[in-house]
Amino acid sequence: MAVGESLLVFGVKGLEEINSGDDLAALIAEHAPLSAGDVVVVTQKIVSKAEGRTVRIASSDASAKRALAESEAVRVLRRRGDLVVTETRHGFVCANSGVDLSNVAEGWAVLLPEDPDRSAQRLRDGLKARTDLDVAIVITDTFGRPWRRGVTDVAIGCAGIRAVVDLRGTRDALGRELVATEVCVVDEIASAADLVMGKARGIPVAVVRGLDAAVFGQGAVTEDVVRPYGEDLFR
Amino acid sequence: MAVGESLLVFGVKGLEEINSGDDLAALIAEHAPLSAGDVVVVTQKIVSKAEGRTVRIASSDASAKRALAESEAVRVLRRRGDLVVTETRHGFVCANSGVDLSNVAEGWAVLLPEDPDRSAQRLRDGLKARTDLDVAIVITDTFGRPWRRGVTDVAIGCAGIRAVVDLRGTRDALGRELVATEVCVVDEIASAADLVMGKARGIPVAVVRGLDAAVFGQGAVTEDVVRPYGEDLFR
Repeated sequence: MAVGESLLVFGVKGLEEINSGDDLAALIAEHAPLSAGDVVVVTQKIVSKAEGRTVRIASSDASAKRALAESEAVRVLRRRGDLVVTETRHGFVCANSGVDLSNVAEGWAVLLPEDPDRSAQRLRDGLKARTDLDVAIVITDTFGRPWRRGVTDVAIGCAGIRAVVDLRGTRDALGRELVATEVCVVDEIASAADLVMGKARGIPVAVVRGLDAAVFGQGAVTEDVVRPYGEDLFR
Repeated sequence: MAVGESLLVFGVKGLEEINSGDDLAALIAEHAPLSAGDVVVVTQKIVSKAEGRTVRIASSDASAKRALAESEAVRVLRRRGDLVVTETRHGFVCANSGVDLSNVAEGWAVLLPEDPDRSAQRLRDGLKARTDLDVAIVITDTFGRPWRRGVTDVAIGCAGIRAVVDLRGTRDALGRELVATEVCVVDEIASAADLVMGKARGIPVAVVRGLDAAVFGQGAVTEDVVRPYGEDLFR
């Protein structure tokens, strides 16, 4: 038996109720048992709530949600029934511009943060100030994707971590050069964290501990992960 | 401090060199310290090698690879330079039909398994026979995706686990009914496992321990995850 590298992923309780103006860094520092080198994964929902990114919505019917989603979009890519697939100002392609009516009070909708990478950087700085620990931050949301059923969590913002790790020029196990393997580690981290958060369990923060040191550094989702319009084969 | 559910993800060493005819279940039973309820994540590469899904390739130049990829496809969706995005017989949409020249001897290419769900079921049965443990299996490959840079690992086959877990009808943390949240847990598991496998480290097996009991059951990637052609908005 020979165990290789290992990761621990755990949820953090006590952060279920977040309101506009709450100091998320202080709350996470209070509730999460952190160590240096941890990645703190935070769902978009509580970041948006703390930042006051909620709006009144006249009714919770699908057409009001769709109208709000279209107002948050720079481009509508597909429509089917009540679903719109849009491109947001950040460049994310997702259902309904990320506008969400679940886990929020009746009559309100939650929008995506204005600049999720900056939100992540603020959280990282806030945790450093409070705990003196260097941790990385990944802010996540739940997106569908073409060709495959089911949603998965992906990163919409990050700080202190390289969003895409480029293995070009390194060698595979047989010594042959890998031509192009750029791994989107922040999306993989988002998915790993969702396995302990679940959708209905109200656990909006998780910690991923034990990642390879090579992943830490500068990174941003909007710059490194969002594929520019002209580079994309499916838009 | 209040820690919620936790997961352990660890890589398994000693399975780097797999050849046609090798008994993968026996090798995994020998090398992996398994417990009941574990998910054993296995990269496509060693499953294909064990099953003899390798072919001679005249040269390792891009055009020979592209020709092989097209011969493995039922549909070519996009071409750009040496890259072809294809739909495979299984219904996967990926680069080069999953044909791979890395981590394989010069002059050979590795194809996807004929039926990765069946491969997973065989592995599950083989591990049950050898260890008397019920474990789930996820077979993974590395796919790109539209709109987002960087690759992530996804599931191409599974056994003993529900591929997509439907949270419709359950309630969110505020008691409001969740309308449609079908989470593709096998893809999230694949991504979590890749974080300990890496692309260049030659660790083709990982174990994910501690998943919610609700995810275990019957599931298949080709039936549950592959989105039928007519249902897809982007094909």
